[in-house]
Amino acid sequence: MIIQLNPDIDNGQKEAIVNKINQLKYSTTEVKTQQGDYLVGIGKSDFDIREIGFMPGIRDIHIVSDSYKLVSRKWKVDYTSIDLGDGVKIANGDLAIITGPCSIEGEQQIKETLEHCRENGVKMMRGGVFKPRSSPYSFRGSGIEGLKLWYELAKKDGVKIVTEVMQVSQIAEMYDYVDVFQVGARNTQNFNLLDELGKIDKPVMIKRGISGTIDELLYSAEYVFSGGNEKLILCERGIRTYETASRNTLDLNAIPILKEKTHLPVIADPSHGIGIRKHVEPMALAAVMAGADGIIYESHCIPEEAMSDGQQTLDFRESAKLISRMRKAHELKKVF
Amino acid sequence: MIIQLNPDIDNGQKEAIVNKINQLKYSTTEVKTQQGDYLVGIGKSDFDIREIGFMPGIRDIHIVSDSYKLVSRKWKVDYTSIDLGDGVKIANGDLAIITGPCSIEGEQQIKETLEHCRENGVKMMRGGVFKPRSSPYSFRGSGIEGLKLWYELAKKDGVKIVTEVMQVSQIAEMYDYVDVFQVGARNTQNFNLLDELGKIDKPVMIKRGISGTIDELLYSAEYVFSGGNEKLILCERGIRTYETASRNTLDLNAIPILKEKTHLPVIADPSHGIGIRKHVEPMALAAVMAGADGIIYESHCIPEEAMSDGQQTLDFRESAKLISRMRKAHELKKVF
Amino acid sequence: MIIQLNPDIDNGQKEAIVNKINQLKYSTTEVKTQQGDYLVGIGKSDFDIREIGFMPGIRDIHIVSDSYKLVSRKWKVDYTSIDLGDGVKIANGDLAIITGPCSIEGEQQIKETLEHCRENGVKMMRGGVFKPRSSPYSFRGSGIEGLKLWYELAKKDGVKIVTEVMQVSQIAEMYDYVDVFQVGARNTQNFNLLDELGKIDKPVMIKRGISGTIDELLYSAEYVFSGGNEKLILCERGIRTYETASRNTLDLNAIPILKEKTHLPVIADPSHGIGIRKHVEPMALAAVMAGADGIIYESHCIPEEAMSDGQQTLDFRESAKLISRMRKAHELKKVF
Amino acid sequence: MIIQLNPDIDNGQKEAIVNKINQLKYSTTEVKTQQGDYLVGIGKSDFDIREIGFMPGIRDIHIVSDSYKLVSRKWKVDYTSIDLGDGVKIANGDLAIITGPCSIEGEQQIKETLEHCRENGVKMMRGGVFKPRSSPYSFRGSGIEGLKLWYELAKKDGVKIVTEVMQVSQIAEMYDYVDVFQVGARNTQNFNLLDELGKIDKPVMIKRGISGTIDELLYSAEYVFSGGNEKLILCERGIRTYETASRNTLDLNAIPILKEKTHLPVIADPSHGIGIRKHVEPMALAAVMAGADGIIYESHCIPEEAMSDGQQTLDFRESAKLISRMRKAHELKKVF
Repeated sequence: MIIQLNPDIDNGQKEAIVNKINQLKYSTTEVKTQQGDYLVGIGKSDFDIREIGFMPGIRDIHIVSDSYKLVSRKWKVDYTSIDLGDGVKIANGDLAIITGPCSIEGEQQIKETLEHCRENGVKMMRGGVFKPRSSPYSFRGSGIEGLKLWYELAKKDGVKIVTEVMQVSQIAEMYDYVDVFQVGARNTQNFNLLDELGKIDKPVMIKRGISGTIDELLYSAEYVFSGGNEKLILCERGIRTYETASRNTLDLNAIPILKEKTHLPVIADPSHGIGIRKHVEPMALAAVMAGADGIIYESHCIPEEAMSDGQQTLDFRESAKLISRMRKAHELKKVF
Repeated sequence: MIIQLNPDIDNGQKEAIVNKINQLKYSTTEVKTQQGDYLVGIGKSDFDIREIGFMPGIRDIHIVSDSYKLVSRKWKVDYTSIDLGDGVKIANGDLAIITGPCSIEGEQQIKETLEHCRENGVKMMRGGVFKPRSSPYSFRGSGIEGLKLWYELAKKDGVKIVTEVMQVSQIAEMYDYVDVFQVGARNTQNFNLLDELGKIDKPVMIKRGISGTIDELLYSAEYVFSGGNEKLILCERGIRTYETASRNTLDLNAIPILKEKTHLPVIADPSHGIGIRKHVEPMALAAVMAGADGIIYESHCIPEEAMSDGQQTLDFRESAKLISRMRKAHELKKVF
Repeated sequence: MIIQLNPDIDNGQKEAIVNKINQLKYSTTEVKTQQGDYLVGIGKSDFDIREIGFMPGIRDIHIVSDSYKLVSRKWKVDYTSIDLGDGVKIANGDLAIITGPCSIEGEQQIKETLEHCRENGVKMMRGGVFKPRSSPYSFRGSGIEGLKLWYELAKKDGVKIVTEVMQVSQIAEMYDYVDVFQVGARNTQNFNLLDELGKIDKPVMIKRGISGTIDELLYSAEYVFSGGNEKLILCERGIRTYETASRNTLDLNAIPILKEKTHLPVIADPSHGIGIRKHVEPMALAAVMAGADGIIYESHCIPEEAMSDGQQTLDFRESAKLISRMRKAHELKKVF
Repeated sequence: MIIQLNPDIDNGQKEAIVNKINQLKYSTTEVKTQQGDYLVGIGKSDFDIREIGFMPGIRDIHIVSDSYKLVSRKWKVDYTSIDLGDGVKIANGDLAIITGPCSIEGEQQIKETLEHCRENGVKMMRGGVFKPRSSPYSFRGSGIEGLKLWYELAKKDGVKIVTEVMQVSQIAEMYDYVDVFQVGARNTQNFNLLDELGKIDKPVMIKRGISGTIDELLYSAEYVFSGGNEKLILCERGIRTYETASRNTLDLNAIPILKEKTHLPVIADPSHGIGIRKHVEPMALAAVMAGADGIIYESHCIPEEAMSDGQQTLDFRESAKLISRMRKAHELKKVF
């Protein structure tokens, strides 16, 4: 069950509620987020919700049959909107477009990408400064210095920064320069990282694990939410299957399924989802039609010279065409 | 290599060509289809194509580096169009819509489905009369009598019949009543069935295997083509993965990948691809945007009472809405 | 439920039982096998087993909660033994060894393999005469002539023949020359083939599907059993996963799980299960320790020259060593 | 390429070697471990190994065609042995047995498990004090206090402690109380954690990722090795597949494949690999026969009351029987 507490609840009232719940053999977790103060009760026994519902200090109470709770639409039917400031939002009914290179490489590249964003009305830019790489000998990113440079250049345009955080110690270091912290597919179940991201007041975008289930993705979001941070975005980016003709298998089924199960925004990453440059466009358009609230994809001034992922990266001409087409597809989808 | 022979080639010329190819250590398979007479050469050594190309009796010759040959776009760049007669086609640039129940159940159901097709301008109807079922105790379909009844009712409307053939002995029995023979996901590598379907002059739609690769699907099509039947359609219907939130994982990546690799039409089956009624629509629309040449999906007058697959079957109101939306999405896709 | 009928039941008694069962809203399938006459009831309602159990003509009755019935150990706790004649058995507690080439190639090869069997006390030989191949241009086997030759040579030694049947029409053709009909991994759900194999009186070995579940394998066996043939053997041969370092992923978990769920013998195929010659031995030994009732693997006089699967085929020296080691491992396993 | 440097190399010599390698367009990583000082060169061009091999300061040089280097048997053919002190080793040809509960729960449980180890001559005990859990509401382990208690109790018996580390900050905290740091399946690609574990002088056991490839496991080991720590053990613990009859699919193919590819010891975890208590024994025995250098499995005084994983945990009677049988199987395997 989820109990939302009144903002002016006093300690005695809260204690009484916790005691009551514990009597029903439910454990309780207290959750304080940017939006409110909740008690999450975990247990199995049946009880009459009115026994608790009328206690003083309670704003509302819901029984949530899913095993994830705070991220479930059984609790919160209305979709959550993530506000990045300056009018930039990731929200149901909108189409968030996030583009940029796999890796931040240097000033010239950042500037050209920002110029590309400006020309196409894109307000969110992606890019990696800490790169998870299978091999220890590969390029691991330009690090915090790259991020600071990017931040300086992007803030002039009001373009928001979406970038991956790989470990707890990076959160504080990156905090001032990041608008959306991305949790990568290899870290979806890095629970310590999720715990720490629950303590901050900036949006977190969680990518589905390399072979993560839809439920595991929701549990990972529950970690951050129950840690105190409601500002969450989920991202489908392809799963590992036996098929080798594509880099991953973009599981667009996950889009409508997630939109039914959770109130959080759901976006798709067709670049990693198929991994083949010329097929990114049809998969991005398909994701829009499947109901995605946004698309994140890789673009670069000269993909052939990108330090990573060039084979799945669009050049700016392709990217501009894609942006225009996604918007048209989204316009059509909205009237359905 | 693929050599297309002149229609008026004489036996001596053909023999000379075969001898020449065998000297290069290539094996040859002679293929006679509705469209032409070909020699497929399989081998590894390099040679100068001009050595063969100027021999009398040869119309053209192509080196095809893929291990499938006749279905490859490296041989035939122009997309193949499948003509079912009466102006009904499955073709690149069009949107073929095929709907109907999982199983043919009886006269009333057939009539209502045909009425639904007529009202929505749908010219192809699906339905199973021989049903592959995991358990021997499940309903196995209405059989040949069901098919004959369906045929009688459908021919008045000029609606084309798409239905699954499960074994060699059924081909002759079904032949007069079928417009497209469907090979089900469990039979994608039933090579004897494919061999026999190569000998007939009716279109064959091959579904991707339950965990078949894209290449295996192309090889299965190559079986039918090399057996003598060019009239082929491929169908993505979801693959088996670890994810249990959906019945299968609809692999829409396969649509653009197949459209690049083969000249054959590629359609998608969102009903089996996700297996959840309310999510069929977004996945159908996504498949259109991914570039599918057609959509096959399940509809029924009363899905709750369907003898099979009711959980993934649309009612006619939902189906009509979907048809209209798919057409709008396709109109948009065409101008991209 | 499964009802075993008395051999001397009369029609009136049988009809009374069927009526009684139908009243409970259970459908009935009558099954006559080599061993007995059964009624399989499929339904969901609860009832008092004594209502039926005391009716005349019933030998025994069991409620089987699994959705497969006749192959379940919930019905038949004692393990089934398959007798191939001449003292050759596949049975719980024994270790059946089946070896031979991927494909039957010719007289010399057959003779050398039989000689290898004789020297090592192996009484069952495998070999393909009809080969399922992904590509239509690959070698498809020596056909019925190869089988007849093999039969003539093997019968002198009393060596039993295990070979794959690919389609219904081959059953009659092959019947006189085969001791165990093998259903290959691509045909595990070729239900027409399974139906027909239910009508014969020779053992059938069913390989697990390329990505078949354990339950699907049991259902496939249920097809044959409910068709009238109890002589069944199951074979784990590796499943398709994302791992590409091996040809398949030999799922040895399936051995103890199947031995718990079914009374049928369970064997393992390490050759296809790993697909790498030098690793066949450890996987064969592992399968013995996991509880397999037998091992089927590929051997050839000169693996490098085998017409198919040479990369996973042992030479006779390696094979002899493996046989000896498997027997020692099995001796140890027996005393555990 | 891998160059082992002489212990007494001077800076000028090292610089000359690095320059030479860079001229060949190879990048260099200097690696200092407990055993030696290496230069790993990563590049693609061909060169004559003698050009470098005779330079002063070089002990030996190897070309390693694998993309992982220091963990490859192409560099180091002899198997690595991990010495935990007091005569306890994990080594090729031995059978390391590691048992204990999923979670450390308290003094009584630790004492009983240690007693069980002592009675059966087991010198390594497993147990979790930091538990990765899908849901944030599940028990997360007894933490550092549990570890300290365990350490105090275990050191009297000379039993070595194997336990999971989940994040960088725990390494220092746990260091004094741990003999083998285990990296769990969800952290196999937590590269920051691997980097930090490369800086310590205690053995690290890396579990294969939930859907990790064999190559990815080797790369993860390469992270630790190239960070400076050679003391590595790999562990196969089952992979995620479509099969739901078992918790994971224990991929025993990985055992002989890893033993061929790497010089590091390879152990198996049948508890997680199948997830069903009664089937842990056959899978453990199978792993021994497949060539595992050790087995790690879960045992508990009263599995039904374990705080986690009880369904796959043996009681001490079952565990004692298993230990005896694994040793017998290993004795047999050794003489093969």
